[in-house]
Amino acid sequence: MKFTIQHKDPQSKARAATMVTDHGTIETPIFMPVGTVASVKGVHQKELREEVNPDIILGNTYHLFLRPKIDILKKAGGLHKFMGWDRNILTDSGGYQVYSLSANRKIKEEGVKFKSHIDGSMHWFTPENVMEIQRVIGADIIMAFDECTPYPCEYDYAKRSMHMTHRWLDRCIAHLEKTPYEYDYAQTFFPIVQGSTYTDLRKQSAEYIAGVGAEGNAIGGLSVGEPAEEMYAMTEVVCDILPEDKPRYLMGVGTPINLLENIALGVDMFDCVMPTRNARNGMLFTAHGTMNMRNKKWEDDFSALDEMGTTFVDREYSKAYVRHLFAANEYLAKQIATIHNLGFYLWLVREARKHILAGDFADWKTVMVKQMDKRL
Amino acid sequence: MKFTIQHKDPQSKARAATMVTDHGTIETPIFMPVGTVASVKGVHQKELREEVNPDIILGNTYHLFLRPKIDILKKAGGLHKFMGWDRNILTDSGGYQVYSLSANRKIKEEGVKFKSHIDGSMHWFTPENVMEIQRVIGADIIMAFDECTPYPCEYDYAKRSMHMTHRWLDRCIAHLEKTPYEYDYAQTFFPIVQGSTYTDLRKQSAEYIAGVGAEGNAIGGLSVGEPAEEMYAMTEVVCDILPEDKPRYLMGVGTPINLLENIALGVDMFDCVMPTRNARNGMLFTAHGTMNMRNKKWEDDFSALDEMGTTFVDREYSKAYVRHLFAANEYLAKQIATIHNLGFYLWLVREARKHILAGDFADWKTVMVKQMDKRL
Ligand SMILES: [Zn+2]
Ligand SMILES: [Zn+2]
Repeated sequence: MKFTIQHKDPQSKARAATMVTDHGTIETPIFMPVGTVASVKGVHQKELREEVNPDIILGNTYHLFLRPKIDILKKAGGLHKFMGWDRNILTDSGGYQVYSLSANRKIKEEGVKFKSHIDGSMHWFTPENVMEIQRVIGADIIMAFDECTPYPCEYDYAKRSMHMTHRWLDRCIAHLEKTPYEYDYAQTFFPIVQGSTYTDLRKQSAEYIAGVGAEGNAIGGLSVGEPAEEMYAMTEVVCDILPEDKPRYLMGVGTPINLLENIALGVDMFDCVMPTRNARNGMLFTAHGTMNMRNKKWEDDFSALDEMGTTFVDREYSKAYVRHLFAANEYLAKQIATIHNLGFYLWLVREARKHILAGDFADWKTVMVKQMDKRL
Repeated sequence: MKFTIQHKDPQSKARAATMVTDHGTIETPIFMPVGTVASVKGVHQKELREEVNPDIILGNTYHLFLRPKIDILKKAGGLHKFMGWDRNILTDSGGYQVYSLSANRKIKEEGVKFKSHIDGSMHWFTPENVMEIQRVIGADIIMAFDECTPYPCEYDYAKRSMHMTHRWLDRCIAHLEKTPYEYDYAQTFFPIVQGSTYTDLRKQSAEYIAGVGAEGNAIGGLSVGEPAEEMYAMTEVVCDILPEDKPRYLMGVGTPINLLENIALGVDMFDCVMPTRNARNGMLFTAHGTMNMRNKKWEDDFSALDEMGTTFVDREYSKAYVRHLFAANEYLAKQIATIHNLGFYLWLVREARKHILAGDFADWKTVMVKQMDKRL
């Protein structure tokens, strides 16, 4: 993977860069739509390509491991072929879902024993088998197996957990060295900084993670319920330690405003279920604030869904029509809202990139943060 | 509306024709996708236009009357503008849904009093107000208000009901004459033949309906549970009486095989929820039979969904992928299956038209009926 910085913003730590992998170029800052079970819910791959147009999407190892299962993905020749997506894919390590979805899991030094939320079957995730699983899924970027601590988290637990995540990281790296690529393209491995909301732990973890010399680095354990200011404080501490010449990925973040604030702190990559999940609940993000499409106020507003929108749904459908579809529980409502929100998120990071390249990112961000912090 | 027959099949009563309205040309035989509440469930209008490509779709008066309600459709300037569909639309009269969805309805000479299946509110449908409602919805083809009898139906009830439907028809026509078009385009009115599965009643009704001299005629009260042979027998009796130089619409029919058999008897237009509803349950229609996509047999079949298919979903997705989406309850499964099935139904009627024009419809039908009557 080749990471090249094109421009650094003079007034913040934002940067515009490119990452080149065997599945193409990723222009950063980037937001990765979440394709949980080999599908971005309600969106055809064709629409994702042609309308939302991200250079990379995310898949969830936990979900893919349970369905369609690893043997099917192996027979298919990997996730790209299975789902018909020939651009970049990143997979998480499954850790986060094990902690949040499995009703019954035991975290030990060896790994995590968990119960499937689908059929109750018992499984083990270890640093070693998660690397093997991610080889078979075949994403372009694969993640270390970590423990993602909740918020709030006691200092002692956060510290012990962080050190275990570091030991797991060593095991991930050792095992990857023995496990060749499954397909005819390379995979890039990202370790993950933990440490909850404790500055000293975050520093210690960032230094450990920087020390392994990976081609890219991630920040985990944030966007788990902490106030935005704490998130930004941690991102800042960690970004100042992680190497500048490697991409930085902030996992599971966030709102449009969170994206801009973290870009300003030096983050290059994001993923979050918020644009897709909120869309299914009728909440649309726009450059001028959020809209609740279940609201009666849109009932006879026949103007375009989003005059500034970039996708066909923004031009083809009216607010009144989308409001009607939500009121009538028509699934098309969710489809339209999902494409809109993803289109908006991708517009936002592309626009951020333009402004970084143009040198006026900081001013633009100030205007946008104010503008987006409204309810329409 | 201008109806022109291009060619009659020499070996059956099938014909290829065109219907020209203010919203364009409808080539027949035609299948009309059902867009119940101003949406063909799970399908974007863009996909409907570009992939399925029907000249006309159907809307349900009962559903539209309850949601978004008639005042919103009036403010929008009619259903075409409201939903963003500028080709033809046909609306049914609401009768069928009142009988099948409302738990609580009373049929009287005056009309039908019914309880909304959504909020329990009470409403009246009469021949007069249903004509006014259809004026405001603004479909290109609007239907008479009738009683659709169930199957089986006692002779006496079927006879009394048929005569009431005839009296209601007279009231529909009288009221339409006093009710101008709501928008700047014309609407064509179709009366409906009833008479259950009784040959003498069907003949009597067809004669009555033919007698009013409408621009097109419909056959109702079939595909309500009767054996296919009884349906074909009734269609044949009725088609022989309805004027040849007017389009014939068989309401609520049916399977791909039903379509071909009825085309051979002289039917020009069809609608049915089968391709869309069955799609959502994982059942795909193809030229070589049906596929249950929930079946484990497709788990590792990575071939294209339908190599003979006409839409992007047939080429872009594999059987294994669609099977996975159904197994994982991903809504994209339903979206894919719906586009596939509608694409197939429209392919089938277009292909039927080609063979009628080429003069070999009867032979082609024999082969297709055999081929499609299989489970893959
Ligand atoms: Zn450590
Ligand atoms: Zn009569």
